[in-house]
Amino acid sequence: MTNPAQDAPAASGPAALKVALLGGGTVGSQAARILTEDAEALRDRVGAPLELTGIAVRSRGAERDWRADPALYTTDAEALVDGADIVIELMGGIEPARTLIRRALAAGTSVITGNKALLAQHGEELFALASETGAQLSFEAAVAGAIPILRPLRDSLSGDTVTRVMGIANGTTNFILDRMDTEGADFADALAEAQRLGYAEADPTADVGGLDAAAKAAILATLSFGAPYTLDDVAVEGITAITAEDNAAAADAGYVIKLLAIAERATAEDGTSGAVLRVHPTLLPREHPLASVRGAYNAVFVEAENAGQLMFYGPGAGGAPTASAVMGDVVSIAQRIVRGGPARLRTPVAHLPALDAAEASTSCMVVLHVADEPGVLRRVAAVFEEHGVSLETLRQVQSDRAAAPGASLRLITHRARQRDLDATVDALAALDAVHEVVSVLKVEGN
Amino acid sequence: MTNPAQDAPAASGPAALKVALLGGGTVGSQAARILTEDAEALRDRVGAPLELTGIAVRSRGAERDWRADPALYTTDAEALVDGADIVIELMGGIEPARTLIRRALAAGTSVITGNKALLAQHGEELFALASETGAQLSFEAAVAGAIPILRPLRDSLSGDTVTRVMGIANGTTNFILDRMDTEGADFADALAEAQRLGYAEADPTADVGGLDAAAKAAILATLSFGAPYTLDDVAVEGITAITAEDNAAAADAGYVIKLLAIAERATAEDGTSGAVLRVHPTLLPREHPLASVRGAYNAVFVEAENAGQLMFYGPGAGGAPTASAVMGDVVSIAQRIVRGGPARLRTPVAHLPALDAAEASTSCMVVLHVADEPGVLRRVAAVFEEHGVSLETLRQVQSDRAAAPGASLRLITHRARQRDLDATVDALAALDAVHEVVSVLKVEGN
Ligand SMILES: NC(=O)c1ccc[n+]([C@@H]2O[C@H](COP(=O)([O-])OP(=O)(O)OC[C@H]3O[C@@H](n4cnc5c(N)ncnc54)[C@H](OP(=O)(O)O)[C@@H]3O)[C@@H](O)[C@H]2O)c1
Ligand SMILES: NC(=O)c1ccc[n+]([C@@H]2O[C@H](COP(=O)([O-])OP(=O)(O)OC[C@H]3O[C@@H](n4cnc5c(N)ncnc54)[C@H](OP(=O)(O)O)[C@@H]3O)[C@@H](O)[C@H]2O)c1
Repeated sequence: MTNPAQDAPAASGPAALKVALLGGGTVGSQAARILTEDAEALRDRVGAPLELTGIAVRSRGAERDWRADPALYTTDAEALVDGADIVIELMGGIEPARTLIRRALAAGTSVITGNKALLAQHGEELFALASETGAQLSFEAAVAGAIPILRPLRDSLSGDTVTRVMGIANGTTNFILDRMDTEGADFADALAEAQRLGYAEADPTADVGGLDAAAKAAILATLSFGAPYTLDDVAVEGITAITAEDNAAAADAGYVIKLLAIAERATAEDGTSGAVLRVHPTLLPREHPLASVRGAYNAVFVEAENAGQLMFYGPGAGGAPTASAVMGDVVSIAQRIVRGGPARLRTPVAHLPALDAAEASTSCMVVLHVADEPGVLRRVAAVFEEHGVSLETLRQVQSDRAAAPGASLRLITHRARQRDLDATVDALAALDAVHEVVSVLKVEGN
Repeated sequence: MTNPAQDAPAASGPAALKVALLGGGTVGSQAARILTEDAEALRDRVGAPLELTGIAVRSRGAERDWRADPALYTTDAEALVDGADIVIELMGGIEPARTLIRRALAAGTSVITGNKALLAQHGEELFALASETGAQLSFEAAVAGAIPILRPLRDSLSGDTVTRVMGIANGTTNFILDRMDTEGADFADALAEAQRLGYAEADPTADVGGLDAAAKAAILATLSFGAPYTLDDVAVEGITAITAEDNAAAADAGYVIKLLAIAERATAEDGTSGAVLRVHPTLLPREHPLASVRGAYNAVFVEAENAGQLMFYGPGAGGAPTASAVMGDVVSIAQRIVRGGPARLRTPVAHLPALDAAEASTSCMVVLHVADEPGVLRRVAAVFEEHGVSLETLRQVQSDRAAAPGASLRLITHRARQRDLDATVDALAALDAVHEVVSVLKVEGN
């Protein structure tokens, strides 16, 4: 083996830490590159060399973005885990990742993973196992790619109370929405362009359907509120139904549409304190800091009681950026092993139940196509009043429906409970004078 | 005393940690409020109650944003330090802050400070003392107010190499430049407005002269490159010379002017590797993430080899936001005391010498008022060529000088060494055909 970490003088200095890498794909190959090329700097920071002992893959002969010493590739992931001081899991998927991580943690070996799907489904079980054996389970790369968000939320804000987190957590959908906004493209064309440029996968379902963002919403909520949440706690709506007409209406009103992963403290109608987790296309005022996050970039916007409004911005994906986040976790864990001392204790678990998304408080933009006759405005306004939803603006607008007889109305509400907003829209659709509910979009950041 | 932290059941649970607060002003009174009002949440997170044992002030009867139990205020700061487990220094200034912090660290007591002026001048001495005695010296609030930047730079990016940090690190100057940009105001009017609204102090010298930003540049560089830097290493230029005409030229070329604190790795002409630290008004393209940071907000833009471009955004000052950052440090230190284990070791000191700012590589926008005669363009372009500076754009523009005979030229260079750019401008000023060098501004983020 030609791992440069082994070139460190063997007589002096502490023994090398054995690092097992599970996965040598987009992110794994970059982690292998950094472990190899930056071995000297890493040794200085850790206080001991990091020795890459092997890379578990499906096929030893596959193409790699970066190639390590061929002798390092192996298909025996279990043997690799068993000999390691630190395990990096970058395989993706549920199995065998879950079983391999359990195997490491059970032996007291700390694990770094970028696997958001696994954490959003089985995180609680894995964290429980880690705290039993005193191993660490670190996952910065699973939250927002390269954006350092784990330590800010967990440590920097540990003397404050986070009330809400809103993230642009999926680069594919952000790229598509961006194209729809700047070029007036419709969804299908923007998706096709994203696929052509490599920003969207051949099967884009998890991205455009909002599932990837939902996994991140669950992890962000867990980090922010200290209680365990899973994918099942997240109300998910993707971007497939967004039309060029929605975009035009948003632009005309001074907004931009972003797919947001939102986790916030809320109080249910019955008084229960809890958290609401949701992913949906959202109107943001053009001057909101999240509104100018373009293309494949991600950002996380945090509101805390004392700190106020913070934002963290950076590449949400990509081999080298994601590997940077992985390596930050590796160095932290390696430093702790070298220095000794107790593992980071799990923060005591808070009890903040997930509430139904109908309990969320949000505002809404509704575009209606209505009959052009006396009394329509009054009847529409009455429906909002009956449901206890107050209006911020109501104005007649131009729309594509202008050709049809009738008029278009654009209404923006004040904050109200989601349940009441939904009931209002149902009642509007049932009005005779309303020909069509053209667009209903949630608004945040006003 | 009525500190709620003491209401914790005394029989069970670990003993309270005694917290001494030095300073009860803008930030100190908010730290006292959080320690009092959020005592229960803090106890849960730390694993032991935090007991506020006293607040050292100059005058016990002074007005406070938030008032603690009157019995807590004291003018005997030394006695307070001597009985403490944790000391929070929020007095500001060099003395007595420096002596009190030394007293605490010498006794092995960890200290949290928000004092950027002190750190930029005497940081090295204080950190050396801390590592001798095993005490911690934490300073998140000194870098960019409430923005979590210390842990991202120190921990999250510990597996990567930071190449450049650019910060909007002073809210007062950002507010003034913002007004000049959006309202075409000149410097004096914008400063007067900032003072009227409470964003600038009666004596604004440290802000508008760039010294506050320079202290932060030194701290950011220390965090990013692991070597100690002081205020003396920073080349400083404030915003007092910025004119409405500079702003108009910037806007016309698609830029906005921001006061940036910049720390970057550089290689000097003689081949020495080092860091350049500088603070100056800077042209940023309007679409750069830092360009939309408005008013009193701060932001830090980080470039790292693998992570790429990251940005951290939030309130750079204010009592409650700054106290949030302070309390994050308090909780981290308190957790370590409760859990036991070694203090965080000092990262080994890197050897990256501060280089003269003339070694920086940057680009430049120059506006010239020139004679309107044949051959001028050629002679101007020749000056750039002689100094090895290549031009990105050169165009004739409208300017306020239009009334005078002659023409205005706007030139933007490619990246070149600062020394060569300075020599170029001197040579341009000496040309007969150049009536006036109207504006010279550095450009970043292109
Ligand atoms: N890509 C990103 O930008 C990004 C960003 C954030 C987080 N992540 C997360 O990082 C993880 C890795 O992503 P990636 O993009 O690097 O994936 P990838 O390119 O598909 O690479 C997966 C690697 O794991 C190996 N592997 C998969 N199943 C295996 C099995 N059963 N046994 C042995 N090896 C197996 C593959 O081997 P072969 O090479 O032989 O096929 C491949 O080397 C995922 O959890 C992903 O969600 C990725
Ligand atoms: N304000 C911000 O937004 C902000 C943001 C980031 C960092 N910081 C830093 O935080 C620190 C505190 O700032 P601040 O705005 O809170 O200052 P401040 O409002 O002027 O408060 C200073 C406090 O220290 C006390 N004090 C000063 N000298 C003293 C002495 N010799 N003996 C005893 N007590 C003394 C004062 O007592 P009296 O009350 O009796 O006068 C006052 O309570 C500074 O280092 C500052 O740079 C501030």
